[in-house]
Amino acid sequence: MARDPDLEVMFHPTTIAVVGASRTKPGQGWLGLLGCIRRFGFPGRIYPINPNAAEIDGLKAYPNLVSVPEPIDLVIISVPASAVPAALKDCIASGNKNVHIFTAGFKETGEEEGVKLQKEIEEIAQSGSLRVVGPNCMGLYVPKARLVTWTPASAESGAVAFVTQSGGHAGDFANYAGQLGIRFSKAISYGNALTLDSTDFLEYLADDAETRIITMYLEGVKNGSKLLRLVKEVNRTKPIIILKGGLTESGARAVASHTGSLAGGDNVWSAFFKQSGAVRVNSLEEMADVALAFLHLGRPQGRRVAIVGTGGGIGVAAADACASAGLEVPALTPHTLKELRGFVPPAGNSIRNPLDVEVILGDISLFERALKVISVDPLIDMLVISLHLDWLCDIAQGDHIAKLATYLATSARDHTNNKPYVVSWRCYRTEPKLEQARTMLQEELLRAGVPVYQGLPRAATALARLADYYQFDKQERQQA
Amino acid sequence: MARDPDLEVMFHPTTIAVVGASRTKPGQGWLGLLGCIRRFGFPGRIYPINPNAAEIDGLKAYPNLVSVPEPIDLVIISVPASAVPAALKDCIASGNKNVHIFTAGFKETGEEEGVKLQKEIEEIAQSGSLRVVGPNCMGLYVPKARLVTWTPASAESGAVAFVTQSGGHAGDFANYAGQLGIRFSKAISYGNALTLDSTDFLEYLADDAETRIITMYLEGVKNGSKLLRLVKEVNRTKPIIILKGGLTESGARAVASHTGSLAGGDNVWSAFFKQSGAVRVNSLEEMADVALAFLHLGRPQGRRVAIVGTGGGIGVAAADACASAGLEVPALTPHTLKELRGFVPPAGNSIRNPLDVEVILGDISLFERALKVISVDPLIDMLVISLHLDWLCDIAQGDHIAKLATYLATSARDHTNNKPYVVSWRCYRTEPKLEQARTMLQEELLRAGVPVYQGLPRAATALARLADYYQFDKQERQQA
Repeated sequence: MARDPDLEVMFHPTTIAVVGASRTKPGQGWLGLLGCIRRFGFPGRIYPINPNAAEIDGLKAYPNLVSVPEPIDLVIISVPASAVPAALKDCIASGNKNVHIFTAGFKETGEEEGVKLQKEIEEIAQSGSLRVVGPNCMGLYVPKARLVTWTPASAESGAVAFVTQSGGHAGDFANYAGQLGIRFSKAISYGNALTLDSTDFLEYLADDAETRIITMYLEGVKNGSKLLRLVKEVNRTKPIIILKGGLTESGARAVASHTGSLAGGDNVWSAFFKQSGAVRVNSLEEMADVALAFLHLGRPQGRRVAIVGTGGGIGVAAADACASAGLEVPALTPHTLKELRGFVPPAGNSIRNPLDVEVILGDISLFERALKVISVDPLIDMLVISLHLDWLCDIAQGDHIAKLATYLATSARDHTNNKPYVVSWRCYRTEPKLEQARTMLQEELLRAGVPVYQGLPRAATALARLADYYQFDKQERQQA
Repeated sequence: MARDPDLEVMFHPTTIAVVGASRTKPGQGWLGLLGCIRRFGFPGRIYPINPNAAEIDGLKAYPNLVSVPEPIDLVIISVPASAVPAALKDCIASGNKNVHIFTAGFKETGEEEGVKLQKEIEEIAQSGSLRVVGPNCMGLYVPKARLVTWTPASAESGAVAFVTQSGGHAGDFANYAGQLGIRFSKAISYGNALTLDSTDFLEYLADDAETRIITMYLEGVKNGSKLLRLVKEVNRTKPIIILKGGLTESGARAVASHTGSLAGGDNVWSAFFKQSGAVRVNSLEEMADVALAFLHLGRPQGRRVAIVGTGGGIGVAAADACASAGLEVPALTPHTLKELRGFVPPAGNSIRNPLDVEVILGDISLFERALKVISVDPLIDMLVISLHLDWLCDIAQGDHIAKLATYLATSARDHTNNKPYVVSWRCYRTEPKLEQARTMLQEELLRAGVPVYQGLPRAATALARLADYYQFDKQERQQA
């Protein structure tokens, strides 16, 4: 793989110039580019470029890049679209090649002027061998380098990278996944992909030691066969989870007016996923759910799950949801059933899978025994613990949920025979004690690295995609 | 339709006997049957039946039904399964025919004893022409009659009925839908369907003036052709929304161990929905979402939506979600585009559908103008207002969300050309001001009868099912 060493400089700059910098407006969510970068604690030197100011926010301003006294690792351009060509020429004249164009108003407008303007800046960028992130994008978020151009963003670094054509998705996904405890190595919002495309970032992330899982939001791609080849290769060691936008006719039209990309048809992308083994997801939320599973769970041997919970109707729903997601919910072996029958009375409890076992969910020591028995069943590859918080809260005023949470976050790990397990919860009432119990459960499990999901369908989807990935991997290895 | 007048008595009893009544255990969520009924404020007379007590919770207890001094409109049986046959014989001997068997442990156990026991009580019930709800179920919830056998339940009555084979679903759905402001006329949890089946309740609800929309959770059905005929007929005037459990192989196994029913295959049920025009949903949550739309929205002329929101990537996701749900997201007419261009600047705003229009979402008067223009577009049948609360909160510290909520809950109704509109919101941050804004928005809109959904996919599904229903209805009328 041909990794571009200059991207490493761009992602870890010591000098940044902001072309078209304006004063920070405090009290608003969006601080302006300069405000975002400074508030996040960027430790390097920042050069505001503005011909009409001597100083901006206490920083000496320069009329252009040529007048800046040192090389710039990352030039961020946020002047109006019509002024972008001149700014790029200034980059070339000053010998600065790493550029993020924040400005919108190009090909994505679908209007003649914007299309023409994009063609013009593309020619300028190519003539000067510029490395351009954008235009029409939010740019880079690298917690370790204290670099970000949006707010808010976590200062903690993590193992997940996000490559996205949508700037809105960049912030939204980082915020949402952040709630699940997911932290990022790098997030890259690259909009219209003038020179740098998804494949360039993928090459970089393949070698990035910090990145263990790669998530992507794609609208279009310039070189499909290169993407396929790269994804297929990188995916073997770093799971690649892709949300492809615009797979419906209406979505494809929206893609054209968003980043001016050609979305490609559903058939093409179905083949892409089948050949590459990349993990396909249908929403940002699903991408976070699936990333959470990859982050914390090991390799399952197959796709057969045991569901341990309470409730008959919800057991049916759980089985349907698992099967629809692509999991199997097999009957337990006669041996397992016999063992369970040893301490689970038949009245009010069904030990058929999905298990509807109030007596077990209501007693930690029985729960432990049940997990040990079920997880050694040779027909079971993974476990879902399905908690009905309303009921659990009623049987012991919330205390029992706290005990269960602690058990699931700690000892359960030793009682599941190294098989992946996740927790799903549902809650249909809104009393404060339930809200508290829910938050506590969620936080304690995530802190301990146990994936936890609201509702069984989300848990099922995450486990199914995990199983898909490792099944593809196994097949590839067998064929190799 | 042959409506059973005795069901009216059963649903509005003046006398109730609880066979196997035990003392209320205060401080727990589940109060016991007697505790539930009394706390809910049942105004009639209650007779605890217990041969070992002279008095229970301050009520005179009787050794059996025969010794009770007056006829009983509803007998509720909660003795152990083995004692149910005797209790049913007591019903027959005392001339009381309306029975709810709460007790589980019959056919659903899959074990020889339970199957045999169910056969026995079925024969007894038939010999005495008993009308049995259950066994293995939660029974009846009729707010107007102050009748309920579970906690908690709203005392308010409403236009939606729920017929369910799952007792867990009964409480969960009532609680969940209640959060969306949905109130119930009747909810019936009927478990194993010993004598009374879904079709009996459907016949009753068809004539029930209080019920405008019927929701159902079905696992199995005794007389499929009768159900089809009934649903087809009733659905023409009262939309019937059905969640069918056990359509996958795993789900069908779970159905067998839940209510001892035969689930039937996916093909059979697909044909059922196609022929009956009933609205098919895939989860309790979806059932509530769809019911909310039917409750508040009028008849759309078709399935073409305009999406008014902000964000490019989210616009793509919105278009994909609508198309996947079965809606169309057409381009607006040139006339509409020209009108919008009159007050929407091109920079940073896309007026192609889905609209990405920060300037409009940030200004109520422009928003009003835009709604008026878009809703008279002949290519548009319905509108989705898609709110990004994180952004809206940032632009005006939450105040703007309050103004938008008030506008959408009041005047917007007059600016949408009588076309159905719903609101979807998304929020990826967790600051308290956002939580507050979210709650306020949700409550204000629901109070005003404007359907509001977390996330566009849920809104899209609700509108798609609404459009499906009225399209079927139109076709039926044309053929008639």
